[in-house]
Amino acid sequence: MPKIDGKRLIADQRKLAEFGRYETGVHRPCLSDIDVASRRWLVERMRDAGLDAHIDGIGNVVGRSRAQGPVLLMGSHTDTQPRGGWLDGAMGVIYGIEVARAFRDDPACKDIGVDVVSWADEEGNFGSFMGARSFIGALDEAEIDRAVSREDGTPMRAALAKAGVGNVPRAQLDPKRYRGYLEAHIEQGGKLEASGKRIGVVTGIVGIRLFRVSFTGQQNHAGTTPMPIRKDAGVALTEFCHAVHTSFPKLVGPLTVWTVGQINLDPNMPSIIPGKAQMLLQVRDPEVEVLDRLAAEAERIAQAADAAGPCRVRIELISRTVPTKSDPGFMAALDAAAEKHAPGSWMRMPSGAGHDAQILALKLPSAMLFVPSIGGVSHHYSEDTAEADIVLGAQVFADAAAAILKG
Amino acid sequence: MPKIDGKRLIADQRKLAEFGRYETGVHRPCLSDIDVASRRWLVERMRDAGLDAHIDGIGNVVGRSRAQGPVLLMGSHTDTQPRGGWLDGAMGVIYGIEVARAFRDDPACKDIGVDVVSWADEEGNFGSFMGARSFIGALDEAEIDRAVSREDGTPMRAALAKAGVGNVPRAQLDPKRYRGYLEAHIEQGGKLEASGKRIGVVTGIVGIRLFRVSFTGQQNHAGTTPMPIRKDAGVALTEFCHAVHTSFPKLVGPLTVWTVGQINLDPNMPSIIPGKAQMLLQVRDPEVEVLDRLAAEAERIAQAADAAGPCRVRIELISRTVPTKSDPGFMAALDAAAEKHAPGSWMRMPSGAGHDAQILALKLPSAMLFVPSIGGVSHHYSEDTAEADIVLGAQVFADAAAAILKG
Repeated sequence: MPKIDGKRLIADQRKLAEFGRYETGVHRPCLSDIDVASRRWLVERMRDAGLDAHIDGIGNVVGRSRAQGPVLLMGSHTDTQPRGGWLDGAMGVIYGIEVARAFRDDPACKDIGVDVVSWADEEGNFGSFMGARSFIGALDEAEIDRAVSREDGTPMRAALAKAGVGNVPRAQLDPKRYRGYLEAHIEQGGKLEASGKRIGVVTGIVGIRLFRVSFTGQQNHAGTTPMPIRKDAGVALTEFCHAVHTSFPKLVGPLTVWTVGQINLDPNMPSIIPGKAQMLLQVRDPEVEVLDRLAAEAERIAQAADAAGPCRVRIELISRTVPTKSDPGFMAALDAAAEKHAPGSWMRMPSGAGHDAQILALKLPSAMLFVPSIGGVSHHYSEDTAEADIVLGAQVFADAAAAILKG
Repeated sequence: MPKIDGKRLIADQRKLAEFGRYETGVHRPCLSDIDVASRRWLVERMRDAGLDAHIDGIGNVVGRSRAQGPVLLMGSHTDTQPRGGWLDGAMGVIYGIEVARAFRDDPACKDIGVDVVSWADEEGNFGSFMGARSFIGALDEAEIDRAVSREDGTPMRAALAKAGVGNVPRAQLDPKRYRGYLEAHIEQGGKLEASGKRIGVVTGIVGIRLFRVSFTGQQNHAGTTPMPIRKDAGVALTEFCHAVHTSFPKLVGPLTVWTVGQINLDPNMPSIIPGKAQMLLQVRDPEVEVLDRLAAEAERIAQAADAAGPCRVRIELISRTVPTKSDPGFMAALDAAAEKHAPGSWMRMPSGAGHDAQILALKLPSAMLFVPSIGGVSHHYSEDTAEADIVLGAQVFADAAAAILKG
């Protein structure tokens, strides 16, 4: 079976983390200058690994195997959250490159191959999964025309032109080429650590629905406006939250999470009754039926509040992703490789976070592997994973890929 | 009785509104360049009215009568909220100047006088009622040393030096000099308009307590953190609001108002469980007993939430003012003057907003007169009052002042 070179793997992980280093982490928004520099470096590393590599017209770094036999697509993303961690998705991309090298160095793997991709903009600088959606044909030119960086307002078109890929075609998926898609990522939660496990075999990725709830009342002086005639948008908002937190627990599945992460009152001053208020309600679950049920409940609460008054309440679905299920055969291969290299120290688990794999899974059999996040921390520069776990994960990943391709 | 000159009065109101004009209102933060210019103009207008006027060491514009007989202190403030209205307190200062002129022009008033003051910083650019508190001896040097502009961070000391009054003594109240204090102001609410009245005789000013409630949980990923182990500071905050809105109505008086005007989640992002949250809860009532009862309830709710967990909840009283009652004799004088000039078109009413009068009332018999705010609007550039109501209010104010001084 292919043999991972732990030192080579970690050296590349550390080298990639130098691009945009921030404290012990990385600040590397997609298509920033430093991100483009890191993509050029990735092209070189892929070529060294024997892949035909280039940056495509959306910023994906695509490395293609020259193998004549069956091929797996693998990868993740190397862009980061602002002041994010050094591993996150970058680990999965380096895993792909290391697997390509391990295959190259193993005579038993000479007829199988992996294509490795660093998907552009997984972290949402310009939009939602722009690179992965481009690859499966689910991103039109008009959306790229409209996209601007949340970091600095740069149009995506301008950033692509500056990166020198404004006129490069966008790579397109040829489903016949691949047995499927594999992605490795840090867990971003604390379940593996809490369970004393070192490998997570991902059973699927939750669907996410994000609602904006808007409350319109009447701005007024907090001293001279009697309670009975107030139309306080802030009160309407906090009462809406209370209704959600009261009714959702009766309707959820075992893995449901919901979050009100953002609240904005207008004008948000101590002596002024808020005339407007807005919040974001996010719901995640592996099952569409559960998401549908909670969406209906949120709408019911909003409509009841709007009807009761005194404020107008409006709820809009502003984004949604569909839950995906991992391929059973791929999971079995990951289970077997994990049991071989870390007997009893692996578990199956769902992913509560979104990943490029949920886009690829729309077109290809897919699965994911997680390694533990120390303290469950992610999207923060202090994110980390033990080096031994990084190396173990890569070996499990390589074995599973070889088994799938030879199966 | 003294006769108000409506044209002269309105001309001065309009002229003062030119200093810092913004749309149909005024942007004139205390001790800004334009505010200092307006204070110099006020000094000239006071001198024209026969008063000995100067700007004191905190920015108060103080105009002293040369009358040998009894004197009333009157005034209000000419600083404004950001992009505020043209009248607000400025109207009350011009009323004072017009009353001084009316007394000067009326032989029957030659032995009585008014001192007129524009109190510095009523709107809180540097602190709370800095000018009025300085005048009654309730502002120490250390507080001035610490004070900085909320508009631009300028230290108050620097602003006073730039205004040329850094070394001018702060005027101090001589209680023996005055029969008491009278202030006129726009209502800032809609009660007069809704009642079809043109004059409000203010019975007292509410006390205000402002609480900061802080919630500390644990910031985490909204997708990978199961509900049972979350410490969501945002949930703790909205549930606190619900508890307040549920229990306060059982404890309030007929005039109580309470407001959650400000809510801040940290980091306020859709996919991050808020680790910290903070809100401001403001309570207003004319009765200390009611304020005490509601303060105790807010603290009880906070302590119960803190004890129940999972977030830490802390409540702090960050400012308080004491409710004040108007002087019965002054109110009777205002009633009589209002009935004479606007029979049946006046009413007694409490003030839900804070005013300089609540500071002066700590040392002198005091009362206030309100004129209607069109649509109840204030602290916005669209604030306005009918000119006829402005002139009527000044005449009632002058008559009441003369009656008090001759009584």
